[in-house]
Amino acid sequence: MANDSIKIGVIGGGQLARMMVPPAIHLGLRISVLAEAAGMSAARAADAVGDYRDPETVYAFAETVDVITFDHEHVPGEILRELEARGKQVHPRPDALQFAQDKILMREKLEELGVPVPAWAKVADEAALQNFIDAHGGRAVVKTARGGYDGKGVRVVSDAAEVRDWFTALAEDARGGFLLVEELVDFVRELSQLVARRPSGEIRTWPVVETIQRDGVCAEVLAPAPVQHASTLDEAAEIGLKVAEGTGVTGVLAVEMFETRDGRVLVNELAMRPHNSGHFSIEGSVTSQFENHIRAVADLPLGDTSMTRPAAVMVNVLGGPSEGTMLARYQQALAEHPAAKVHSYDKQSRPGRKVGHVTVTGADLETVRPAAVAAAAVFE
Amino acid sequence: MANDSIKIGVIGGGQLARMMVPPAIHLGLRISVLAEAAGMSAARAADAVGDYRDPETVYAFAETVDVITFDHEHVPGEILRELEARGKQVHPRPDALQFAQDKILMREKLEELGVPVPAWAKVADEAALQNFIDAHGGRAVVKTARGGYDGKGVRVVSDAAEVRDWFTALAEDARGGFLLVEELVDFVRELSQLVARRPSGEIRTWPVVETIQRDGVCAEVLAPAPVQHASTLDEAAEIGLKVAEGTGVTGVLAVEMFETRDGRVLVNELAMRPHNSGHFSIEGSVTSQFENHIRAVADLPLGDTSMTRPAAVMVNVLGGPSEGTMLARYQQALAEHPAAKVHSYDKQSRPGRKVGHVTVTGADLETVRPAAVAAAAVFE
Repeated sequence: MANDSIKIGVIGGGQLARMMVPPAIHLGLRISVLAEAAGMSAARAADAVGDYRDPETVYAFAETVDVITFDHEHVPGEILRELEARGKQVHPRPDALQFAQDKILMREKLEELGVPVPAWAKVADEAALQNFIDAHGGRAVVKTARGGYDGKGVRVVSDAAEVRDWFTALAEDARGGFLLVEELVDFVRELSQLVARRPSGEIRTWPVVETIQRDGVCAEVLAPAPVQHASTLDEAAEIGLKVAEGTGVTGVLAVEMFETRDGRVLVNELAMRPHNSGHFSIEGSVTSQFENHIRAVADLPLGDTSMTRPAAVMVNVLGGPSEGTMLARYQQALAEHPAAKVHSYDKQSRPGRKVGHVTVTGADLETVRPAAVAAAAVFE
Repeated sequence: MANDSIKIGVIGGGQLARMMVPPAIHLGLRISVLAEAAGMSAARAADAVGDYRDPETVYAFAETVDVITFDHEHVPGEILRELEARGKQVHPRPDALQFAQDKILMREKLEELGVPVPAWAKVADEAALQNFIDAHGGRAVVKTARGGYDGKGVRVVSDAAEVRDWFTALAEDARGGFLLVEELVDFVRELSQLVARRPSGEIRTWPVVETIQRDGVCAEVLAPAPVQHASTLDEAAEIGLKVAEGTGVTGVLAVEMFETRDGRVLVNELAMRPHNSGHFSIEGSVTSQFENHIRAVADLPLGDTSMTRPAAVMVNVLGGPSEGTMLARYQQALAEHPAAKVHSYDKQSRPGRKVGHVTVTGADLETVRPAAVAAAAVFE
């Protein structure tokens, strides 16, 4: 069956593309990756290698597949709009993707949708930034509008001069532009709401999760999130639905949020692709974020997003072993933790780099979290 | 992580090789398939195409990987023994695999191990066969020793003349040989015990399952098996362990058994590879048969084989749609059955051919079985 299968093209050869391959194999959908280089994480499906910023490379790749989707949000919008003009399916569509590519556009859209966000401003110079800082308790978060990820492009500052280099870079950029500044939110935890949406509009949410960051990088995910008030679960889901429908995203959307000390939920970031906060769903959900992403971009009906067990915890492996071989760690991790699901992205170890993750599922967070942490620790 | 990964070579490009690819991707083990032809089910990982009966083809493929395993049991033992002589890891080893390749060797080994089997004999001519038939109620099951699968090479006969063609073929075969004849067992259900075993001897069993056959082909699998007596579960597991250790199998072993009306368990067949009766384990078990197979052949510690939920039912899709497109069926099946896990092997539809399967997990067999049957029926 599936000799009339859809072929999905993924731009970008990282671990998100890699983890789309197993559900594509199971569902009988064909998948092909345009990787940045040979030997990347998604090498098993990398039928093409090239620069995603080069229009002809992307157009040639698109000719070989039925629908285009992404491992990351860095493909220029003008290339994607040209693909659409040529009649190619692109999901998420560039008109939606722009809200994940540009944090200022994102903030403007979220405000238009009536979604609660931290106080923010776009600032073009140090004076404007210092005014915001002074008006918001003397400290604020500054972000570049484009290109940031995993804590890069984000600084907490008390003096506008601390981002002088970013203003200088903007001044030298022909496109000009602004920095984004936001109030420092007094939060009790960070949440992430995953949503999958089809071009036809069908939409599903996973239970909201807690994400625990270290040095600006996701370290652990607890599913479902142990929120203070049960109503926060519904509120997060409602925000997720509103953002998905309001932006017209197709595929998986991650809405990162703060749960504030006074019980409010404020949206922090958007990602329009499978997201680190959803890796738990490979084992923790009846349908994983990777499976629903490829179903959505192929415009196939979405799968059940219920938890398979009451709790799941995912712990990232950052950096990988600095000494000894990976195989030796595997022997130990798998022997000591037979119920842990160990994922390796087949990437070279490098300090702080996401090279794998471990998920444990079970009856409650209290028992599964230490198990997942211990299994992941074998690789540090 | 895993830049020092093990590379597993799989001989045979069918759906079993295909389904080894997802856990290899997740674990960061590299996998490479020698397929019989281009465009086979495991095409995504088929780095080589060639005839597995040709020694030089197999030796050249083996040079590219660290360990050899199999999608099927048809690779000649002499090729595998030569691979071992050249220092290549082969799992299962040819000394074990022979018991799955030759049903008469299997019966002799099972008897030597003291494992309960139906009454049987090896017969070289019609007279000997007729004697067995007459002594066992006037009907018996005749099997060719080699090459049978999915009901092929198996006939229920009351007159020895009904397998005259097989005796003629044996007489023309330079190797000569025997047919296997067995009593017709009065069984209430068929069972399958899956076992995984590492070269180091570590061993794990999954809960025994019921297999429901139609026209000699596996149609449904119920996990765990709803046996008459709880003791049957332990008995099946003990038999599985005894056979695994007694044959020295490495990788996954499936022991197919009859549960007789009087509560005994008799071994029917062995398979030394992942098996149709274990497909439920992809979603139904913490560690699937495919993951533990590749862990075992890579000599990595085995994973937890507990059920993720109390019950799982797998239903094969046989043949596939005779009219309309597969994609149209996908739209219907996924929309109507969001909790069903649909697997397509990306094979051309053909009457009776296994082209996919559907698994549903849940609280009990009574609720999940109709759901799995209904979802699979969309494809018929």
